[in-house]
Amino acid sequence: MRMYDLISKKKHGETLTCEEIAFMVEGYVGGEIPDYQMSAMLMAIWFRGMEDAEITELTKCMASSGDRIDLSAIEGRKVDKHSTGGVGDKTTLVAVPLVAACGGKVAKMSGRGLGHTGGTVDKLESIPGCRTVLDRKEFFDTVNRYGMSIIGQSGDLAPADKKLYALRDVTATVDSIPLIASSIMSKKLAGGSDCILLDVKTGSGAFMKTLEDSIELARTMVAIGEGAGRRTVALITDMDVPLGNAIGNSLEVMESMDVLKGHGPADLTEISLQLASNMLCLVGRGTLEECRKMAEASIEDGTAFETFCSMVRAQGGDDSVLRDYEKFARAPYRKDILAAQAGYIVKMNAEKCGIASVVLGAGRETKDSCIDFSAGIRMEKKYGDKVEKGDLLATLYTSRKASLEEAGRMYREAVSIGDGPVEKMPLVYARVEIGGIELY
Amino acid sequence: MRMYDLISKKKHGETLTCEEIAFMVEGYVGGEIPDYQMSAMLMAIWFRGMEDAEITELTKCMASSGDRIDLSAIEGRKVDKHSTGGVGDKTTLVAVPLVAACGGKVAKMSGRGLGHTGGTVDKLESIPGCRTVLDRKEFFDTVNRYGMSIIGQSGDLAPADKKLYALRDVTATVDSIPLIASSIMSKKLAGGSDCILLDVKTGSGAFMKTLEDSIELARTMVAIGEGAGRRTVALITDMDVPLGNAIGNSLEVMESMDVLKGHGPADLTEISLQLASNMLCLVGRGTLEECRKMAEASIEDGTAFETFCSMVRAQGGDDSVLRDYEKFARAPYRKDILAAQAGYIVKMNAEKCGIASVVLGAGRETKDSCIDFSAGIRMEKKYGDKVEKGDLLATLYTSRKASLEEAGRMYREAVSIGDGPVEKMPLVYARVEIGGIELY
Repeated sequence: MRMYDLISKKKHGETLTCEEIAFMVEGYVGGEIPDYQMSAMLMAIWFRGMEDAEITELTKCMASSGDRIDLSAIEGRKVDKHSTGGVGDKTTLVAVPLVAACGGKVAKMSGRGLGHTGGTVDKLESIPGCRTVLDRKEFFDTVNRYGMSIIGQSGDLAPADKKLYALRDVTATVDSIPLIASSIMSKKLAGGSDCILLDVKTGSGAFMKTLEDSIELARTMVAIGEGAGRRTVALITDMDVPLGNAIGNSLEVMESMDVLKGHGPADLTEISLQLASNMLCLVGRGTLEECRKMAEASIEDGTAFETFCSMVRAQGGDDSVLRDYEKFARAPYRKDILAAQAGYIVKMNAEKCGIASVVLGAGRETKDSCIDFSAGIRMEKKYGDKVEKGDLLATLYTSRKASLEEAGRMYREAVSIGDGPVEKMPLVYARVEIGGIELY
Repeated sequence: MRMYDLISKKKHGETLTCEEIAFMVEGYVGGEIPDYQMSAMLMAIWFRGMEDAEITELTKCMASSGDRIDLSAIEGRKVDKHSTGGVGDKTTLVAVPLVAACGGKVAKMSGRGLGHTGGTVDKLESIPGCRTVLDRKEFFDTVNRYGMSIIGQSGDLAPADKKLYALRDVTATVDSIPLIASSIMSKKLAGGSDCILLDVKTGSGAFMKTLEDSIELARTMVAIGEGAGRRTVALITDMDVPLGNAIGNSLEVMESMDVLKGHGPADLTEISLQLASNMLCLVGRGTLEECRKMAEASIEDGTAFETFCSMVRAQGGDDSVLRDYEKFARAPYRKDILAAQAGYIVKMNAEKCGIASVVLGAGRETKDSCIDFSAGIRMEKKYGDKVEKGDLLATLYTSRKASLEEAGRMYREAVSIGDGPVEKMPLVYARVEIGGIELY
């Protein structure tokens, strides 16, 4: 078998066999297939796409290229969650304790933030003492005891994906749905959970800007998951506007705790409940409606919040900050952004809001940037709100005084105030499972 | 400027600017742009194509990447000739002396054979003593004195093409008309002639198998040549059947001399006359009809043959072999191929005939193979001929006795004998110039 012939096949729109895909992935990871042949293949895939069977095989081979987490030491059905990333997206901090409080098991490896989107590991680390590096036994014990543990990626998970992603990143082949789907799902398969709930974001702050592309990505990932024997469901959720009212690590932790305590923002509460209900449903805790009621009850009776606190303590964190937010480190500098005119907020560019938060120090411009946990944005008015001139739109927080002006200018640019009232957009657009797509 | 953005532009079907193309070629030759980015770009070009202005710029940049031959030391207008390669294609050995005998100037750098197609330099070297490596002064002097000189490629001509071609060869991006056209034309532009006559082969023995692709390649090369200020014309000629009756180096020299002496095969004579007339017309020796008459006269009065002999002597060769073929080295082994049945030759696969000649030792399987100048095939019956069972179809010549059986089997497979008489195919399908395409 020669890589040359595989490139030629794909270039002409033919389907690669399982053997051919395995040869390609193993050869590339092993160094026998050079970057220049793989990049030609990636570009051919960008143009020709891949069939579901090809993508599933590619994903399985990538998942098999490194460590595979064996979760059998954890009792019961395990459910994983993945978000394609967004601005103010703290749903993991809410949905996972909801699931754990209702009897689901979540052994979750999360990522760090990069660019305009945040990462759950950074948010957790804003809680004093909270460790996100646990050894395998501690990780499993925490899940067995509290139903949940969230840690950073450990081990050599899907090295084929790391190598391929680095190549895609420099050859303009990132934006290919088969390649995005296989990249995400290879890590989920290696992660070892029985079920996978995908939160595919759509809109200005998401990687997928259109609903059509988001649905196609969701459909592809669901096909991969089910093809690999994992029960998989995807929700398409809004990321045209930042989620909730807070952007920035400790600010987002506080807001998530507000939701678990029953008084969080409506949009974040609703999306988190839908994610949690679907996760519970996947592990067989009941119908979607029953699971929703259970999740709501776990907020009302405080068990979801206490579950999260237990996990934080188990991971070495000081959960008193979650009960008294004043104990969080405070950003020394702040700036209020006021409305320059009266009207309605007719547009919020979520990506620009995210970039403003990075400028303040809440995120990473490059992989090596340091994060200021207290930095971020608290939004007082959001899409659709009526404002008077001089109303407080948002407050910026930072440790870098010099960044306030630039971030303020960017935030102002991100928020458009117009005349008339605007239509409310849905929070969840669709639910995708192997049987079909349900549009909400 | 970043290569990443150029790949992305081309991927989305946008047109690259002159500055962008120059950045890409210079960066690639200079080593700042890595192979893996260039191969992604080549694949994007394979899918999206290039506009004439882009291809012309690409070709000019490639031509400028190394030495450019300055032919100003040669008086008058210089005309170059390029064939896309075929089996039994010895037209350079005929057309160039016809042009030189009629007052045209041809300072030609030719290639060696590779795969199933032969190369002019190998053919010349089958003449005892004939050198194909001359220094620049000797090369120019020979052209000034005799109107022609044919040598191997010398100097560092279009190194960008060498590097790009090597990459295309391993990334399945050879078969792209913009890339083929720019590769050929970059060397022609660097070669320095004022006018260029292109012989684009079409059919089973050619790189371009269909007339449509051959015309598109011709059209593209003519656009590049004219865009770079060179008068350029292309003929589309048949390569569905080997040209003439001889395949193999000294066999082809003898056949070419037969044409110059006025008794060569009709197909080779006709195509050579058309090529020569067009070359003469390009350098302004008259109308196509007038040039054709001049070329015919140079055969009749022997001046074309004497011109070739003069060049051979000037390049150190023994021209007595051209007058007395018995003086050529003889292949020690031969095998006659007889018709297994009566009928008509309804098909000849030119590529297979070429491969059979390589097996006999007449060509190169890899760049490092040695050539047996006396090896080859002399065809007695060709496409359209009526044969009786037992008629001599061809004679194989070789120094490797063991190769006769395999080559014989291949040659038999290449020649199909069927029932009815078949339609004669045209020798020249079309003439392409900047104004348009004339179909014959």
